[in-house]
Amino acid sequence: MQDIYPSRHSAYPELLPRVDPVLHGDWNESSPLSLDQAKHFDSQGYVVLHDLFSEQEVALLQKESRRMLGEPSSLDPATIIAEPGSNEVRSIFCIHNQSTLMARLAADARLAGLARFLLDDEVYVHQSRLNYKPGFNGKEFYWHSDFETWHVEDGMPRMRAISVSMLLAENTPHNGPLMLIPGSHRYFLSCVGETPADHYRASLKKQEYGVPDMHSLSELVAQHGIVAPTGPPGTMIVFDCNVMHGSSGNITPLPRSNAFIVYNAMSNRLQDPFGPPAPRPEFVAARSLEPIRTTGGPVLNGVE
Amino acid sequence: MQDIYPSRHSAYPELLPRVDPVLHGDWNESSPLSLDQAKHFDSQGYVVLHDLFSEQEVALLQKESRRMLGEPSSLDPATIIAEPGSNEVRSIFCIHNQSTLMARLAADARLAGLARFLLDDEVYVHQSRLNYKPGFNGKEFYWHSDFETWHVEDGMPRMRAISVSMLLAENTPHNGPLMLIPGSHRYFLSCVGETPADHYRASLKKQEYGVPDMHSLSELVAQHGIVAPTGPPGTMIVFDCNVMHGSSGNITPLPRSNAFIVYNAMSNRLQDPFGPPAPRPEFVAARSLEPIRTTGGPVLNGVE
Repeated sequence: MQDIYPSRHSAYPELLPRVDPVLHGDWNESSPLSLDQAKHFDSQGYVVLHDLFSEQEVALLQKESRRMLGEPSSLDPATIIAEPGSNEVRSIFCIHNQSTLMARLAADARLAGLARFLLDDEVYVHQSRLNYKPGFNGKEFYWHSDFETWHVEDGMPRMRAISVSMLLAENTPHNGPLMLIPGSHRYFLSCVGETPADHYRASLKKQEYGVPDMHSLSELVAQHGIVAPTGPPGTMIVFDCNVMHGSSGNITPLPRSNAFIVYNAMSNRLQDPFGPPAPRPEFVAARSLEPIRTTGGPVLNGVE
Repeated sequence: MQDIYPSRHSAYPELLPRVDPVLHGDWNESSPLSLDQAKHFDSQGYVVLHDLFSEQEVALLQKESRRMLGEPSSLDPATIIAEPGSNEVRSIFCIHNQSTLMARLAADARLAGLARFLLDDEVYVHQSRLNYKPGFNGKEFYWHSDFETWHVEDGMPRMRAISVSMLLAENTPHNGPLMLIPGSHRYFLSCVGETPADHYRASLKKQEYGVPDMHSLSELVAQHGIVAPTGPPGTMIVFDCNVMHGSSGNITPLPRSNAFIVYNAMSNRLQDPFGPPAPRPEFVAARSLEPIRTTGGPVLNGVE
């Protein structure tokens, strides 16, 4: 099969046009986004949703995230990623399989229903994680397209996946918030270099392969600028799998934390990776999948 | 003589009240700031001034800064500080003695006259430098009060000095702009630990002594918040010597650059350091000083 999004094969980067739609579904009045929001997602590659969760729900999620970060011994050790050069937990993967509350969050209609609309398909959780960026010395996350990695390393065929970041701490302009290059999702930026086998563990701490080149990044930013959505805990940032994003370090006293759920269309399930021979493990990129069912199931709303 | 601002003597940090005024002069209608601006400087510890320099002047300063960064061989090697772990130039010290244009900038009435008003005294250049923070991998600058260092390491007796940062590249919210804790200048935060002799060269790259503790920083931010002024090249950020400030790293393609001039009151000239026995060298902290004269002298305005 021809690879329509080739990367890490050439000595030169290329900005290729995106072949896939962004908004896969057709908007109508019962869609979970307003028409303006749907258009914004389509053209900008992201949308920010406020006030969808109650204070009580957000407090529950925060409490659960503190529990998970505070009791790593209760978790599968393989799913815990520490800060480079320290033991501080940076991310916990596969949270929807390790916490009942996080499983409910992933299945909640406000996330999964939105994903079904945007992707126009049944969806499953490709990846989930809890991210924690401490205050004072939180490390940066360099620019990347998630899809580039998921395609090359995990075998995700097409751009038909979205991420939801549920803020569990306030994003201010100063504490290293998620930065996006709006509109960058309409290109596929191929990266230079090959991918060594089994490098995924180091790459979850600090990306060394699939790194976009400076020239292309400059061009994208010159054309499209940078946005860094801010908001209180409970704010949902929904973004396309291929939008270029990153975040600065955090020297403020204000830690950052979010729950991150990636939904992939059932029709877009993983194949053999386009890059290295062995795919990454299940907790980073799900292969044994089941579509998420929300109808009649438990939702977060009203949980005590 | 009793040290009214003791630091690096104790195992515990202390937030002491500031003994000195902030705005030393009396405002009147011919003052170089509006009454609101003067009050803002007094209460917040900084003020941002836009559009004081013409486009032509800003372009000249940018050209001169590129020349200095591009021809380091024309400069005193001791005054050049590289990024940690690289050869990229991060700062050039003592620019007012190494560039005619920068000398004119330092003597310009819009800077030096403002300093005379704020400090109510004749002034001299305590320190000057050109800062360059590259795009993509610009490093952070951790929180600090300049006065703490100037007092302990250089023997600056009282809080009667100000800094002017003249932006030579745009400060956006995203490219690691100067962050200030407004109001923090009204306390003196003593730091823990002693100062090794002759550590200044390493400390200009990465501060290891005179580092404020996390608990006090959290308290200051909880009370006063954080501001990060933005603006195009030519914007002047004027701040008190004791306001707590720092900056995040910069992963954006947009480099940051500014010319930085510190004015000290003639009556506040350096004494023996309050910390280590030997003071830092002249290019970091001037001892052989002359008051700046602007009357009748050349100004930047109109320079070809």
